[in-house]
Amino acid sequence: MKLVVLKFGGTSVGTIKKIEKVADIIKKFKKKKYSVIVVSSAMSGVTNTLIKKSKEICENFSEAEYDVLVSSGEQVACSLIAGRLQHLGFNSRSWLAWQIPILTSGPHKNSRIIKINKNKIINFLKDDGIPVITGFQGINTVNRVTTLGRGGSDASAILIAKFFDAEKCIIYTDVEGVYTTDPNKLKKAKKISVISYEEMLEMASLGAKIMQPVSIQDARLNRIDVYVRSSFVKKSGTLITKKSNIINNKIITGISSTQNDSKVTLIGVKDKPGVAAAIFKPLSKNLINVDMVVQNISPNGKETDLTFTIKTEDLGRTKKIIKDNRHINFRKLSFEKGVSKISIIGVGMVTTPGVTFRMFQALAHKKINIKVISTSEIKISVLIDKKNTKKALEVLHKEFKLYK
Amino acid sequence: MKLVVLKFGGTSVGTIKKIEKVADIIKKFKKKKYSVIVVSSAMSGVTNTLIKKSKEICENFSEAEYDVLVSSGEQVACSLIAGRLQHLGFNSRSWLAWQIPILTSGPHKNSRIIKINKNKIINFLKDDGIPVITGFQGINTVNRVTTLGRGGSDASAILIAKFFDAEKCIIYTDVEGVYTTDPNKLKKAKKISVISYEEMLEMASLGAKIMQPVSIQDARLNRIDVYVRSSFVKKSGTLITKKSNIINNKIITGISSTQNDSKVTLIGVKDKPGVAAAIFKPLSKNLINVDMVVQNISPNGKETDLTFTIKTEDLGRTKKIIKDNRHINFRKLSFEKGVSKISIIGVGMVTTPGVTFRMFQALAHKKINIKVISTSEIKISVLIDKKNTKKALEVLHKEFKLYK
Repeated sequence: MKLVVLKFGGTSVGTIKKIEKVADIIKKFKKKKYSVIVVSSAMSGVTNTLIKKSKEICENFSEAEYDVLVSSGEQVACSLIAGRLQHLGFNSRSWLAWQIPILTSGPHKNSRIIKINKNKIINFLKDDGIPVITGFQGINTVNRVTTLGRGGSDASAILIAKFFDAEKCIIYTDVEGVYTTDPNKLKKAKKISVISYEEMLEMASLGAKIMQPVSIQDARLNRIDVYVRSSFVKKSGTLITKKSNIINNKIITGISSTQNDSKVTLIGVKDKPGVAAAIFKPLSKNLINVDMVVQNISPNGKETDLTFTIKTEDLGRTKKIIKDNRHINFRKLSFEKGVSKISIIGVGMVTTPGVTFRMFQALAHKKINIKVISTSEIKISVLIDKKNTKKALEVLHKEFKLYK
Repeated sequence: MKLVVLKFGGTSVGTIKKIEKVADIIKKFKKKKYSVIVVSSAMSGVTNTLIKKSKEICENFSEAEYDVLVSSGEQVACSLIAGRLQHLGFNSRSWLAWQIPILTSGPHKNSRIIKINKNKIINFLKDDGIPVITGFQGINTVNRVTTLGRGGSDASAILIAKFFDAEKCIIYTDVEGVYTTDPNKLKKAKKISVISYEEMLEMASLGAKIMQPVSIQDARLNRIDVYVRSSFVKKSGTLITKKSNIINNKIITGISSTQNDSKVTLIGVKDKPGVAAAIFKPLSKNLINVDMVVQNISPNGKETDLTFTIKTEDLGRTKKIIKDNRHINFRKLSFEKGVSKISIIGVGMVTTPGVTFRMFQALAHKKINIKVISTSEIKISVLIDKKNTKKALEVLHKEFKLYK
C-alpha cells in the first residue's frame, strides 16, 4: 500500500469552490493508485470567528470549552470534503478525532498527539476508503476534546503520516512553497526545492510563516518527508527532509528578516552569575518575547553590556519593567527602534569557511552598518537599520547565488 | 434531587448577549436549589447556513456527512453557554452527544433517541455540575453522528427529562407560550395557560409552529410535563400536560388556521376498494403533502366525490400527476385556490353536545360559507374562503369565550 497523507490548510478549503478543487487533487492521487488519508483545517476565517465569540463571552474563557468550540471548525470542513468525494463516486467519510480516536496529552489549547488508534482507519483504507480526518484536535484520557494549538493541523498530518507509515505527507497551502526569503519583502526571492528540517526550523522561527516550528520538529524527529505546495497552482513545491537527502551546492539556503524590532542595551551590567536571569525573568513573566540576546565579554571582568531585541510594540512595557525592577544593576539603558534582524541560513555553512566574512563584506559594500552579530551552527544573524532591509536581502541573495 | 431540564431554542441563543441571558435564567434555577440539565439548539441561522453549504457541494449531499456537518452547530452553542456559566462561577461543562453517549436508531437526518447512558451526567450533577448537552443529535451503533430531524432539540430535552426523571422540562423559545390561535393572524389571541398533549398535537400539526408533533408525542408517551415559555420576557408560559391534570371549563382550547391551501375535488370517482389508494399513491410518491381528505357517501352506490387539500404551491404538480395517472377513473376534476382550513380544538368537546352546531351557526351569522367539513374526537375542521380567515377566527373566539 503506497499511502500519502494530504493536508489542506484553511485557505485551501476556504470556499465551496475551493473544496471542489481539493477533491480534484485527491482524485488525482487515487488515479495514481495511492491510498489517501486527508487531513483538513477549518475553512479560513472560521476559527477566528469562533475565538471572537468566546472572547465576547468573557476574556478568560474556559480552555476546555475553547477546544470544544473551535474544534467544530474542522468538523464542518471534513464533512464537506467527504460529501464532495462521495458525490464524485469515492468511498469516503469524515473521521472526527474522537471516532478514531486520536489521543493527546498536555493542557487544553496546547495538547500533543501521543497515540493514534489505527485499526478503524486501516480497515477503511482496505475498503478503498478515503478517510477525511479532522486536523488540529484529539481527545484526552477523560474523553474531552483537545486542540493542538495554532498550526496544529500540520502536526496532525505529520503524526498521522508517522503512525500510518505514509510514503509522504503533503501540506497544501496558499503559497507555492518555501522561498529564499519572504517574497513580500523581495519579489525576486526564489522557491527552494529542497530544505533540511534544521534550516526550515530556523526559517520558520525567524518569520517564514508556512509551518509552525513545533510541526517541523515533529517531522524532523519522526523523519517524515514533508512537501509544502499550493492547492491552487500546479507547480512543484518545497520538500522538507533530512540533511543527508540533500545534494546541494549552495552554502546558504535562505535568508530571513524580521521587522518592527527594537534593540535594548543595558550598559554596565554587573558581570556575575544570575544577572541575565534577573533581567529576563520579569520580561518573561509579562509575556514579552525576547529574541536575539547578545552579551559582550566584560573587558575588566566586572561589567558587561547586554543587548537584546523585542517587538517594538513591547518597548514601552519593557522600559517600565526594567525600571521597576530596581534590583537589576546597570549604569545606563539605551533603546533603538526600527532595527531589523537579517539571518542567513544554511547547513552548508558548517563546512564552508569564510561565510561570515562574505556576509559582512557584502553588507559593508552597500554601506550597511552592522549593529549586533549572533551566530549558530547553521545561521548567522545581524542587526541592521530597518530601512536597509531590502537592500541587505538583495545583496545577500546575490552574494550567495540564491537567484539561480 | 429536584431536577429540571431547560431547553433553549436557536433564537434564545442567537447572540452572545442572548447567551448571557440564558445563563442568567439558569442561575435563577440554581438559586432555587434545582439541579439543572441544559439542552441547547444551534445559534439561530447557523443550521441553515450549514445546510446551504452542503447543497452547494451537491444536491444529494451524503446524509451521514450532513449529520456531522449540522451537529457542529449545537457544539458551538453548548460550549459558549458552558463557558459563560463557568465565568459566573458555576461548575459547568458541555457534553457532546457522543460523550454521554446518547444512542439513537433509525436513518441519518431522522434518527430517534433509544437510550441515554446516565452515569456520567448523574455523577456530574452530584458534584453540583450543570451539564450543557447538545440537542438534536446522538450517535448510532457504529459510532457515527446522527441527528433527530428538524425540531429535534425538543425531542432531546423531553427524552433527557424522561431518562433522568426530571420534575419538569422547560422549552425556552421566542414566543411566550401557546396561543388560542396564531397571534400573527389574530392580535387579540390569548395565551393558553394549560393544554393537553392531544390538543397540542392537533395545534402543532395544524400550524402552531412552537413544537414539532414528534416531540409532543414523545412528551405524551412518556408523560413529561412540558412548559413552553419565552427566554426574553418574564411571563408564565404554557404547560403541556395530560388531560387529567387539566381543570378547565373551556370547551375549546384553541383554534388553528392554515393558509395557501388549495382544494381539489375528483367528481364521479368509481366507488370501489383501492380507488383512494390509487389517487394518493402517486401524490405521496411525488412528496405532495395531502392534508384534509373528505369523501362523501355515494348516493347511487357506484360513484363518489373525493375532496382533499394541498398547499397551493403544489397545485400545478398535483394536476399533472392526476392527469398523467389515467388509471384513476373520475368524471371531472375541480380545483379551488385560496381556501383556508379553520379547526377548533378541545378535549372538552367530546363531552359537550352541540359544539359542531355552535361553530357552524357562528360562521353562518357572519355569512361565511363552509365548503367542506371534517371532524375528529377533539377537533372540528372546516374549509372556507381564505379571505374570511380573520373574521372566522374572531367570531369563533367570541363564540367559545377564548378571549376571557
